[in-house]
Amino acid sequence: MTTILNVDQAKGLVAEALVASNTSLPNAASVAGALVKAELWGQVGHGLRRTVAYAAQAKAGKVHGQAVPRAEQPRPGLLLVDAAHGFAYPALDLVVDRLPAIATSQGIAMAGIRRSHHCGVTGLVVDAFARKGLVAMMFANAPAAMAPWGGNRALFGTNPVAFATPVDNAEPLVIDLSLSKVARGKIMAANQKGESIPEGWALDVDGQPTTDAKAGLEGFMVPAGDAKGVALALMVEMLCAGITGANYSYEATSFFDAVGDPPGVGQSIIAIDPSAFGPHIGERMTALVTAMAETEGARVPGVRRHSLAKEIEGKGITVDDALLADIQAISA
Amino acid sequence: MTTILNVDQAKGLVAEALVASNTSLPNAASVAGALVKAELWGQVGHGLRRTVAYAAQAKAGKVHGQAVPRAEQPRPGLLLVDAAHGFAYPALDLVVDRLPAIATSQGIAMAGIRRSHHCGVTGLVVDAFARKGLVAMMFANAPAAMAPWGGNRALFGTNPVAFATPVDNAEPLVIDLSLSKVARGKIMAANQKGESIPEGWALDVDGQPTTDAKAGLEGFMVPAGDAKGVALALMVEMLCAGITGANYSYEATSFFDAVGDPPGVGQSIIAIDPSAFGPHIGERMTALVTAMAETEGARVPGVRRHSLAKEIEGKGITVDDALLADIQAISA
Repeated sequence: MTTILNVDQAKGLVAEALVASNTSLPNAASVAGALVKAELWGQVGHGLRRTVAYAAQAKAGKVHGQAVPRAEQPRPGLLLVDAAHGFAYPALDLVVDRLPAIATSQGIAMAGIRRSHHCGVTGLVVDAFARKGLVAMMFANAPAAMAPWGGNRALFGTNPVAFATPVDNAEPLVIDLSLSKVARGKIMAANQKGESIPEGWALDVDGQPTTDAKAGLEGFMVPAGDAKGVALALMVEMLCAGITGANYSYEATSFFDAVGDPPGVGQSIIAIDPSAFGPHIGERMTALVTAMAETEGARVPGVRRHSLAKEIEGKGITVDDALLADIQAISA
Repeated sequence: MTTILNVDQAKGLVAEALVASNTSLPNAASVAGALVKAELWGQVGHGLRRTVAYAAQAKAGKVHGQAVPRAEQPRPGLLLVDAAHGFAYPALDLVVDRLPAIATSQGIAMAGIRRSHHCGVTGLVVDAFARKGLVAMMFANAPAAMAPWGGNRALFGTNPVAFATPVDNAEPLVIDLSLSKVARGKIMAANQKGESIPEGWALDVDGQPTTDAKAGLEGFMVPAGDAKGVALALMVEMLCAGITGANYSYEATSFFDAVGDPPGVGQSIIAIDPSAFGPHIGERMTALVTAMAETEGARVPGVRRHSLAKEIEGKGITVDDALLADIQAISA
């Protein structure tokens, strides 16, 4: 059984649960906004279902629900943000608020967030920049799930990379991908159902290919593009944690349980003002999108998500009743 | 039969051929330096063997051997470089010369190069930044060889991504990869030998998997990580051509023949001063490299290349005599 919630009802549901879990109202509203946007984008793994773990972590102090993110500007083009072991979303809101003006004046600017937490759908952040006329890249790390190529110790998360660019008279182009071959959630789902997984998704603890979902969860995710994907995951670690002073993936605690220290992961966002390169650049960006749209069988990344978001916003967000009850119980 | 050349002999060989092909001495020296460094890094596909095609293009005017790259700084953090349809290397030298000071003062800076040409080993450029204490990323495009996922028209090059970071008391960490599953040169080599290629390397003109090398060359390269690799190739197009005003891959002429207009491709380099984020950052970068080095079976990207370079520099560069004769004939 499921229930349909409109956007405001869904936000209220999440915010109430968090406020009841030692989280400030502004932070609860920020988290609720991000989880609901993830639902609209069809990224339900980063949506409402995260509320239960978030609330448990806020209660346990693994995430500091009252934290206030703070930014300093050590150089004209840099924003160093301390998420203070609070939720990532208020820190990301701060970046979306402050970084665009810096990028516009400097041409390029970067924000590095340390002492952060699960950042949800990275595409949403870069999309917000593209809607302000900026090109943006985002890098984030997550608890370790991938080994260096040839190695048998998980050092890297599935570390997402996101990119967005404005397109004249159209929704932004948005790319948003993790560097594992498949999402870890797919293997968790197979494990719950007792199903095997296709070869090529995961490796066991000895680094050998496995079709056993449980062995895969205990072992490692296969990187997208094999050695190349894991090299890019290393680059992401350096950009979002090495530089910012955040924890590396292999130092980070789980996003899913309320045990241990805060994860302390990092995110970094680079924003570029394309208009600085000349007045014709908007047209040029659009030319490539048009070439893709005109290619038979190809899709422009982001387009389907934007239309899905409008559709879901119109008809409401479908929530499983068991999940709804779990979330409502938090503030009951 | 082969001949061993020391570094100066190899540089002289290339420079003489180019000077005899309507190229200025400074430009010839820049190209020679880059091709020889590629040889030292074991990247022979970007090494001395490129001289013949470069010289033919310079003679035909497809690359302007006398061009002088020019830079403007439209915003404090941006360098917009016009390679003026000359070789890419003098423009890259300009960026390596001027961008570090901008990155240090601004915290982050970007150079975009338009009207450029084949840029060789992207890892060499980011390595030069890391040796100055900076973290660097580079993106470049190349004539189209990959189709959008599901599409049957080549829109993207195999578009390399490079990344380097300084490491305390050690050589820089360097990542340098193209976004196709394998290098196009491997398929060209199989075609020359009349051998078939493994499934998963290339698609035919209809976008179907092929093991026929010739059909693969006429068709498309398979992206690394399938849909994810091609999404990243699109990101690279936007960063190095869309923003900079360079030609997209599908607009660029070949790097291998002397026919048609200049390729007019683009490169972009983003440099970050990690010390701006705090005094401890050098240690943190090194911590991850150490964790990798301590992981059984894993390799730190770049380490093998740096030691190979020292080895080749010591014992000399091995050149096939047929190639040597071809290059010498240019200036004869």
